[in-house]
Amino acid sequence: MNFTKMHGLGNDFIVIAGESRLPDNASGLATRYCNRNFGVGADGLVFILPSDKADFLMRIINSDGSEAEQCGNAIRCVAKYVYDNGLTDKTELAIETIGAGAQTVRLNVKDGKALTVRVDMGAPILDGLAVPTTVDENPVIGHPVEVEGTEFRFTAVSMGNPHCVIYVDDAADFDLHRWGPKLETHPLFPKRINVEFATVLSRSHIDMRVWERGAGPTLACGTGACATLVASVLDGKADRSAVVSLKGGDLEIEWSETDNRVYMTGPAETVYRGVLA
Amino acid sequence: MNFTKMHGLGNDFIVIAGESRLPDNASGLATRYCNRNFGVGADGLVFILPSDKADFLMRIINSDGSEAEQCGNAIRCVAKYVYDNGLTDKTELAIETIGAGAQTVRLNVKDGKALTVRVDMGAPILDGLAVPTTVDENPVIGHPVEVEGTEFRFTAVSMGNPHCVIYVDDAADFDLHRWGPKLETHPLFPKRINVEFATVLSRSHIDMRVWERGAGPTLACGTGACATLVASVLDGKADRSAVVSLKGGDLEIEWSETDNRVYMTGPAETVYRGVLA
Repeated sequence: MNFTKMHGLGNDFIVIAGESRLPDNASGLATRYCNRNFGVGADGLVFILPSDKADFLMRIINSDGSEAEQCGNAIRCVAKYVYDNGLTDKTELAIETIGAGAQTVRLNVKDGKALTVRVDMGAPILDGLAVPTTVDENPVIGHPVEVEGTEFRFTAVSMGNPHCVIYVDDAADFDLHRWGPKLETHPLFPKRINVEFATVLSRSHIDMRVWERGAGPTLACGTGACATLVASVLDGKADRSAVVSLKGGDLEIEWSETDNRVYMTGPAETVYRGVLA
Repeated sequence: MNFTKMHGLGNDFIVIAGESRLPDNASGLATRYCNRNFGVGADGLVFILPSDKADFLMRIINSDGSEAEQCGNAIRCVAKYVYDNGLTDKTELAIETIGAGAQTVRLNVKDGKALTVRVDMGAPILDGLAVPTTVDENPVIGHPVEVEGTEFRFTAVSMGNPHCVIYVDDAADFDLHRWGPKLETHPLFPKRINVEFATVLSRSHIDMRVWERGAGPTLACGTGACATLVASVLDGKADRSAVVSLKGGDLEIEWSETDNRVYMTGPAETVYRGVLA
């Protein structure tokens, strides 16, 4: 079987195209091939399949065999793959995901290859109860949350999944393992929450580290970067378009005044092509 | 650049053949390509090169860019690679390493492919001061070592690197993280030590988990498996030939009565062939 290893900000995938549908044993293939010592090694297995409603269908099987509904880093890889390999010549595409329906992506192309990909991440949800939090405000800005006698202030944003954004002096040096789990599971957040620790470097540049719900610290979280920019606009700390620096690299995030949607632009990289033995 | 991803008991390598000498930037290539998110992902980069004194020269660059002197899991992969790819038709080969000179390996072949590889790991060193330990005995069998009020008993063996073997009730369930670091750095071991926690299942089968000096728990340690068999023979617990089960799989170890050398037989697997983008 042929595959291509790709990553978006270090979130890495085994990309497989050319199948007509998801293989029956996709879950087993994912656990086997995502294993980093005995297999190929990746965060997930991504299948590029035919779609009835969009140009392509993307299905992502995580390394534990479960299916992911959506992934901002994977969709950039898929967009680059289909363009770079001549499966399409369009630079604006619709890619169907099982969680978010057809998502529009736009490629920035140079010398016949996609350098970066812009993804429409949809409109943010700012109603506190809808995020969800237990705070009945809309929006929830700078709300106090106390953990072990220390008070933090968070701004709540849902990008389809729940986020709380907290400003700290130095996000890059912040003790995620100490505070992340306690905030994730705080009673203010009934479905637990993704926690972004952000430092505003300027009105157009925010440094951020993420504690992902159920996963802990990761190199990059696309929805978390979007939530951070939205919160920083609400808080009056940033312009509507800014670079969000994550551990794995940079994303450009724009919260459009015209249509209220959030657009994320970021890189995707092809590392190698492989043939399983 | 073409490469082949291989592993021996989950200890995984990017194998590169066809170069005439080690590239000048081998250290940089290793740190880049061994990265599991941004690169190919492996424990090390293995170059198969021409040798003056043996059939081939193996050089191993670790994922941190340093060079390894020897590796029992890597040498099995190299032997399989050169045979399966037709670089030799010999089933008994000499492979030069920078740490151990020319090592003799023997391939067990089926249908034109190497299934397992037997490696001559040399004679064990049993003198306590030479291992080194601070115990002036030869051999050192069942010597007490106390950690936080708990007494363990160890048998000391050097296979070119120092090992202490400790018998426990259930190696598979032993708390390596609690006891490993304290034993590794105990004052009885002046150059620190690799620690094997072993459970003798029968005279021909030993279960073992390893705490590697400087690396912590690993899936498999070839010299550790050899030291465990030697210790178990000295302790009267096992025959001179036995299977040692590690977390990553099984090794057959024989301590020859004829020539006093230890022979390790184990698998090597080819996972996929790749071409860097």
